[in-house]
Amino acid sequence: MSIKFEAVEVPIPQGVNVIVGQAHFIKTVEDLYEALVTSVPGVKFGIAFCEASGKRLIRHEGNDEELRNLAIEVCKRIAAGHVFVIYIRNAWPINMLNAIKNVQEVVRIYAATANPLKVIVAEVEPERRGVIGVADGHSPLGVETETDREERKKFLREVTRYKL
Amino acid sequence: MSIKFEAVEVPIPQGVNVIVGQAHFIKTVEDLYEALVTSVPGVKFGIAFCEASGKRLIRHEGNDEELRNLAIEVCKRIAAGHVFVIYIRNAWPINMLNAIKNVQEVVRIYAATANPLKVIVAEVEPERRGVIGVADGHSPLGVETETDREERKKFLREVTRYKL
Amino acid sequence: MSIKFEAVEVPIPQGVNVIVGQAHFIKTVEDLYEALVTSVPGVKFGIAFCEASGKRLIRHEGNDEELRNLAIEVCKRIAAGHVFVIYIRNAWPINMLNAIKNVQEVVRIYAATANPLKVIVAEVEPERRGVIGVADGHSPLGVETETDREERKKFLREVTRYKL
Amino acid sequence: MSIKFEAVEVPIPQGVNVIVGQAHFIKTVEDLYEALVTSVPGVKFGIAFCEASGKRLIRHEGNDEELRNLAIEVCKRIAAGHVFVIYIRNAWPINMLNAIKNVQEVVRIYAATANPLKVIVAEVEPERRGVIGVADGHSPLGVETETDREERKKFLREVTRYKL
Amino acid sequence: MSIKFEAVEVPIPQGVNVIVGQAHFIKTVEDLYEALVTSVPGVKFGIAFCEASGKRLIRHEGNDEELRNLAIEVCKRIAAGHVFVIYIRNAWPINMLNAIKNVQEVVRIYAATANPLKVIVAEVEPERRGVIGVADGHSPLGVETETDREERKKFLREVTRYKL
Amino acid sequence: MSIKFEAVEVPIPQGVNVIVGQAHFIKTVEDLYEALVTSVPGVKFGIAFCEASGKRLIRHEGNDEELRNLAIEVCKRIAAGHVFVIYIRNAWPINMLNAIKNVQEVVRIYAATANPLKVIVAEVEPERRGVIGVADGHSPLGVETETDREERKKFLREVTRYKL
Repeated sequence: MSIKFEAVEVPIPQGVNVIVGQAHFIKTVEDLYEALVTSVPGVKFGIAFCEASGKRLIRHEGNDEELRNLAIEVCKRIAAGHVFVIYIRNAWPINMLNAIKNVQEVVRIYAATANPLKVIVAEVEPERRGVIGVADGHSPLGVETETDREERKKFLREVTRYKL
Repeated sequence: MSIKFEAVEVPIPQGVNVIVGQAHFIKTVEDLYEALVTSVPGVKFGIAFCEASGKRLIRHEGNDEELRNLAIEVCKRIAAGHVFVIYIRNAWPINMLNAIKNVQEVVRIYAATANPLKVIVAEVEPERRGVIGVADGHSPLGVETETDREERKKFLREVTRYKL
Repeated sequence: MSIKFEAVEVPIPQGVNVIVGQAHFIKTVEDLYEALVTSVPGVKFGIAFCEASGKRLIRHEGNDEELRNLAIEVCKRIAAGHVFVIYIRNAWPINMLNAIKNVQEVVRIYAATANPLKVIVAEVEPERRGVIGVADGHSPLGVETETDREERKKFLREVTRYKL
Repeated sequence: MSIKFEAVEVPIPQGVNVIVGQAHFIKTVEDLYEALVTSVPGVKFGIAFCEASGKRLIRHEGNDEELRNLAIEVCKRIAAGHVFVIYIRNAWPINMLNAIKNVQEVVRIYAATANPLKVIVAEVEPERRGVIGVADGHSPLGVETETDREERKKFLREVTRYKL
Repeated sequence: MSIKFEAVEVPIPQGVNVIVGQAHFIKTVEDLYEALVTSVPGVKFGIAFCEASGKRLIRHEGNDEELRNLAIEVCKRIAAGHVFVIYIRNAWPINMLNAIKNVQEVVRIYAATANPLKVIVAEVEPERRGVIGVADGHSPLGVETETDREERKKFLREVTRYKL
Repeated sequence: MSIKFEAVEVPIPQGVNVIVGQAHFIKTVEDLYEALVTSVPGVKFGIAFCEASGKRLIRHEGNDEELRNLAIEVCKRIAAGHVFVIYIRNAWPINMLNAIKNVQEVVRIYAATANPLKVIVAEVEPERRGVIGVADGHSPLGVETETDREERKKFLREVTRYKL
């Protein structure tokens, strides 16, 4: 049988970021819950995870119903075993990405973004699917000049204040 | 030349889990050996790694001949440079995944699972291949209900006892 | 629209290694700079990163113009949002891979190698592209024998001296 | 000369937590700044660090003058080379402790607490001092009963919601 | 008031190892439980933690009553805020030390050992105590010779099989 | 018996840094060797470790005889079970501290410095000793002014080039 490829659209509401990854085992959904709720006080989020055997349910947790439902909806569209989808609000991926990478069931992360996102899925047989990549935002239009670089440095130091 | 895609079946014996990843450099096979043997007393395992230049051999280590041969066999089928395959018995991926992620040659992990697994491989030219993803288990059949959630929580707390 | 696939050649000069990965947010380019410059005294490197929204520039840093330009050139060819390319000289990927994995914006690494490398890119729409994998070096030609294994152990212990 | 011991009081304002540790090199103060400001959106903090050679200044950063001055004041009292003091508000130590442990200059952390804290300092010679420990809060009064345990589990699950 | 110092004996039954550390916040006891139970299948352990404010109880978890009671007993003797004591059987500290270091409340570890152990405690005021160090086993008697080194290498490679 | 305290001088040759820590088990000396030799190409170092039971030898490794002998000499003076001492040349602690923290036997690090260093040791009984702290360099002389801060930022950006 030939492999079919599909690009799944991931909706991203205003002020929200999405993280998509691969894990193993349903404990993931609880460990991701803990990683998120302890990362940023007041963070709002929804998590969904595609259980890949047994009851094969989309397992989910969170503290924001809109984001939880979105995560479930995207898992339905991707429909690939052991994939998880996290939506966050009131926080940024940098606040929690290292905590997520350290979750003992997480094998890898595909994307962390607020850009338009398509998740590329391969179907090797009916009901046997896997994420093969993401199209995160758009291709570059040019190369940073010295002026752009100064602007970038200023943005990181004077607007976000992430750097000194 | 057009890229060819192939789905490689990964056999998984009863009671065994498999971990598939990407590394660089043959030292990987020894560092993975150490990561595994020090993770769980009595763990049985086999490791194989596709050396990508020089002699281009499937390098291997382990303490269980069946699992070692299986790992070699799957590396032969995948046949993609710098890919490694680990089979474990008497242990679970959660016992060692973080140790594997921290091995200094490991670049990423594709899957850790006991489910039916297909590794999706792209061939860009003869003998130049790469893993692009995995189909780990099967697509979800539905969404967890509150009853399913209680069952999941009970399973993690009363059967595996992983959570309090 | 159907997805198009392309294999992008990554040139690797003598004595140089390349690391290709996925991140999010332009701060990556500065954090990668810091991770590299503090990893090995005297390391020479170039970093480029595909900004995926806003100005959509190839952001870049480094302390070696040849490597910086190479990294920019490869980002142009890959042209996928949030991808980064690092070239290093006077150092090896093992000296810095764990530091790169720990950078808070880094989501995953695709390859770290000095072998002939092709990066496989999927285009889901014009200007919406993603890396789906790499062909790193060449497929294996055989299985390590006991003699090869002794040679490998000797190489790691007496030539590189990485092991005791 | 005999070693002198001293217990330094660390003032802790309402709603504030303190983290005390050991590092090496003045870059610490900037790396700690970055670790904190990227951990929690809106976190308020002050950092001070005892430079141990050269100009031997209390180096400091932060985004809250009260907390910055407190950190400086505590460094003056401890007066031990390479010690750092961090005060945080609008956040908890669990939001950032792993990020601090991963800062490449940090050698260890002595305490992270909102309790009454005394830092125990040894002076081996005039102007040569080191932290040897902390008295963090007070000694236990008894052993948790099953009722206390239920209360603890409820507190973590229903009040802080850190656990499921 | 002058600081008082005391050396607390830590009993270590045959086949058991002990880990002593410093954390903050009662969630520690649950996170340590999870770190241990997921590290090694079948590990037996007891954990106790000195809550440093509020009810000030020795919080405890585990799956082996003897080890749990021992951990509680040692916490009573140390009686220093935020200190934890872990006893393990059927496993070794190397199987879980990195997992414990990564627990988000853990600030540092004092010792991991099966040797005779004394924990050195300073009392700055009644009921305000802190661990300042450990006497782990005994002082060295000599310097490894080349013969000792060969024996060590053999032990690690042929007895424990931790190294190749 | 009363506890005796002693301040052990740690000699630091020109261009050399020292790292002192606590571990468990003689495998440490080999794992530290690997962590160092793979951190920086060309790094020169000596490692010594106080075995705390059995033969109770000062175990040692390295690739520079002067540094190896120095490490052994300092271990003799400290004479506390499970303590290790590392001397490095052609490299800086920041190049390898995170690798050392991640070694699975390392429990904590006491100091990483090129400053005059005294290690404070407590003796609870003859031949039962433990490190309780370090005096790393000297006490601060004042508080950084805005001019000092500019100088510090310039030093890190224009001299060491560690920051952008």
